Amino acid sequence: MNGAQSLVKSLVASGIDTCFANPGTSEMHFVGALDSAPELRAVLCLFEGVATGAADGFARMTGRPAATLLHLGAGLANGASNLHNARRAGSAVVNVVGDHATYHQQYDAPLASDVAGIARPFSHWVHSGTSSKTIGGDAARAVQAAREAPGRIATLILPADTAWGEADVTAPALPVAPPAPVSAEAVALARELLTNGGKSAILMRGHAVLSAEGLELAGRIRRKTGAKLLCDTFAPRIERGAGVVAPERLPYFAEMLTDFLAELDSIVLVGAQPPVGFFAYPGKPSWCLPEHCRIHYLAQPHEDGASALAALADALGASEADERPALALPQAPEGKFNAFTLGQALARVLPEHAVLSDDGATSSGPVLAALASAPHHVHMALTGGSIGQGLPVAVGAAVAAPDRKVVCITGDGAGLYMPQALWTMAREQLDVVTIVFANREYKILSVEMMRVGAEQPGPKAKAMFDLNDPYVDWVSLANGFGVPAARAETIEEFSAQIEVAMAAKGPRLIEAVLL
Amino acid sequence: MNGAQSLVKSLVASGIDTCFANPGTSEMHFVGALDSAPELRAVLCLFEGVATGAADGFARMTGRPAATLLHLGAGLANGASNLHNARRAGSAVVNVVGDHATYHQQYDAPLASDVAGIARPFSHWVHSGTSSKTIGGDAARAVQAAREAPGRIATLILPADTAWGEADVTAPALPVAPPAPVSAEAVALARELLTNGGKSAILMRGHAVLSAEGLELAGRIRRKTGAKLLCDTFAPRIERGAGVVAPERLPYFAEMLTDFLAELDSIVLVGAQPPVGFFAYPGKPSWCLPEHCRIHYLAQPHEDGASALAALADALGASEADERPALALPQAPEGKFNAFTLGQALARVLPEHAVLSDDGATSSGPVLAALASAPHHVHMALTGGSIGQGLPVAVGAAVAAPDRKVVCITGDGAGLYMPQALWTMAREQLDVVTIVFANREYKILSVEMMRVGAEQPGPKAKAMFDLNDPYVDWVSLANGFGVPAARAETIEEFSAQIEVAMAAKGPRLIEAVLL
Repeated sequence: MNGAQSLVKSLVASGIDTCFANPGTSEMHFVGALDSAPELRAVLCLFEGVATGAADGFARMTGRPAATLLHLGAGLANGASNLHNARRAGSAVVNVVGDHATYHQQYDAPLASDVAGIARPFSHWVHSGTSSKTIGGDAARAVQAAREAPGRIATLILPADTAWGEADVTAPALPVAPPAPVSAEAVALARELLTNGGKSAILMRGHAVLSAEGLELAGRIRRKTGAKLLCDTFAPRIERGAGVVAPERLPYFAEMLTDFLAELDSIVLVGAQPPVGFFAYPGKPSWCLPEHCRIHYLAQPHEDGASALAALADALGASEADERPALALPQAPEGKFNAFTLGQALARVLPEHAVLSDDGATSSGPVLAALASAPHHVHMALTGGSIGQGLPVAVGAAVAAPDRKVVCITGDGAGLYMPQALWTMAREQLDVVTIVFANREYKILSVEMMRVGAEQPGPKAKAMFDLNDPYVDWVSLANGFGVPAARAETIEEFSAQIEVAMAAKGPRLIEAVLL
Repeated sequence: MNGAQSLVKSLVASGIDTCFANPGTSEMHFVGALDSAPELRAVLCLFEGVATGAADGFARMTGRPAATLLHLGAGLANGASNLHNARRAGSAVVNVVGDHATYHQQYDAPLASDVAGIARPFSHWVHSGTSSKTIGGDAARAVQAAREAPGRIATLILPADTAWGEADVTAPALPVAPPAPVSAEAVALARELLTNGGKSAILMRGHAVLSAEGLELAGRIRRKTGAKLLCDTFAPRIERGAGVVAPERLPYFAEMLTDFLAELDSIVLVGAQPPVGFFAYPGKPSWCLPEHCRIHYLAQPHEDGASALAALADALGASEADERPALALPQAPEGKFNAFTLGQALARVLPEHAVLSDDGATSSGPVLAALASAPHHVHMALTGGSIGQGLPVAVGAAVAAPDRKVVCITGDGAGLYMPQALWTMAREQLDVVTIVFANREYKILSVEMMRVGAEQPGPKAKAMFDLNDPYVDWVSLANGFGVPAARAETIEEFSAQIEVAMAAKGPRLIEAVLL
């Protein structure tokens, strides 16, 4: 057994069954070891950001890590922006990054770089292997680190000689600590804040907290106390639709957020951070809670927020269920073709338990509104603000949950960061319907330009938002990657196309021209 | 005047006339300032790696930096792999990376990251601005740092409040030191090594050294001493073809390189590093020079290699010119369609002073061989081994040299890392002909798999090299990005298409199916 085989078998022993890969020469022994581990599925990606984004999507669906396989520091760098998003999502990811053999690094060959230095800003755990005999154990430690609650980024650097050298054993899985329990004191304080007569809200984040079950508990608390239920604008994962208690989503823009929160006397955080502006704006506050608002961390992200909600509901005697949206499908939309009518058409055909990977920027709000009473579905937002994660996360979600329909909604600007994900959808015949909101501009930027109080934009500035000269032909692009596609310029065209796409299995793309 | 205007005007004052941009909200004031600086051309890119790769290509053509405009740490990360390549090329690049306002960073908003930490492994100079009053001066320092010989990566981080705050002045350009002169001692030692009766070689790198003039000097030395003239497998920039003294290109594979160098008693380095294996391989040496070979640094990369060659030629009394290839166009190729016949067809229509941006992996060697006696042209290789630079570098070269025909030769694997560059070619109507070697596999990897002595690859391993399931339709992809394209499956088809493409102006793509 060589180090690579020990590594692969140790990953499998620790529960890794999927690897999103974009290997190079220094990872050839890892690639060679794949066939010795039938339990490990290897999914080829044409770009590293697709691999890391897919691992994020996989973790959001399963709660456990996939591996990535990346080629030295440069390959890791190509995957880094989606690791940033994954880190913000609290997703567990195990990166395996090849490097030059230990003794080769002294020569400063063209691909040499500071791999650990590149990994550090995006990783909670970084280790560079030193021996083929210990690389299996390193793999077990990487998985353990990644599984720390709520989910961490672990990066294991694999010098080529630790892959091809001799190894003896497969490392067994290491124990993984469950999420930390919250204290009775924290529950008691939350109870006090929700019952002291002031205006209060509960801001929630985390897979278990924002699951139907977690939200059901939150609904009981709302019913008992009148507290507002809130979730972040960009929750990593939330269940929603018919039958699921619906929290209010925080507004995106800082001044709307400040207004929205203005009357709160207290806010109870369950796995969430205090709400702040996504960006700073001249003369506007970054801190959006009112001065006097009391902040209480009922559960931090590494703690067991769902159990904390249960304990709080018990402490409050909150046993009665609150209102949940009933299933209500919209009438077939007619007339104007916009993100809301698009959402209505989608709501009519969305199968139960569908997964939405959302990188839709200015268009996703209206779609979510239109889906409020659609069948129960899972929504996964762009967590770290680095656009381009929607398609890769959809790849990972579809690999993780082959029985569910995955719908990727993405802006055309966002989708053009990593369109290579379409190829992996075609190759693996993933059941993903991609809807591109083709407004042919970086619409959010033309909005933000005004808001930041910058100059009245001149022609050169305006050109920086323009995606219309030339506009991207998404049908041609998708076909180039092997994905069947259609263009919709009216709501009627879209309605017909989405119905066909939902009824079929396999990847499809619809370019929704929303000018 | 705000900080952004001071920054933009200061960049212009320091000689920056081109900015490859992919901005976001935090860079809106920079974008707003563009129209106040008519001297600065802003070129929009759909992905940050296109922007950084284009800046590299621009620097290779002009010897001076362009700016990039990138969106926080995640945007910088997306551009980092081509900064790695640019760093290896000795290219001057000035990155301007927006960040949250200084006072906003405490809140850990979704896009917050360690921007300086992300920049450091890829940059020679990193600075985070602290005031709108000093950001202009910071810009001047960034350009000065980037222009340090041979060319450096300078990254200036621009917190949003340093862009929108008030500023007073435009910073003047700072003095830039010329390349360091080499000592008489270094010249004397080189002379001794080349005339002591041993077998010697001169390994050269750097724009001036590998220009027609630098190579002419090297040719005189060869004629006088019999020394071999060598250049790296992956030189950042070399002039070649008819009328230009031709050094031998070092072989890529370590054991071929070792054999190639086996008889050398001494090697004189002019701007180059000692040749080593690109990768390490089990049981094969990484160090490729013979044990006894004497190494002499006549000029380090920051020193004036061309003047050193002139001084050496003088010291040797080497005044007679050596042989240069005469213009010799191949017959129209017939029969087999491969990289060599493709190169012959290209040679027949390549205009003088054309620029080749080469990311062609296994196919570029035969093309270069076929172009040996073609009209004088410039070749720019993949310097850092991070594939995907060919298309972006072509963008930058075409922006820098609008009067020259740029030819991008790229593997299909390599081209799929950053195909978004095609859109910028269409938008700016750049005169770039892209030739994609569509062998529909990561061919270099199936070669390397054998060479590293990994397992006989099983089906899962083999699947990691396969780009045929599905194959990418490059014509469809290029059309999607607005670039006219054609597919060639025979040498006759290719010959006809390349003739049309060369005669026209503007972007074109030919998918050369080389199965």
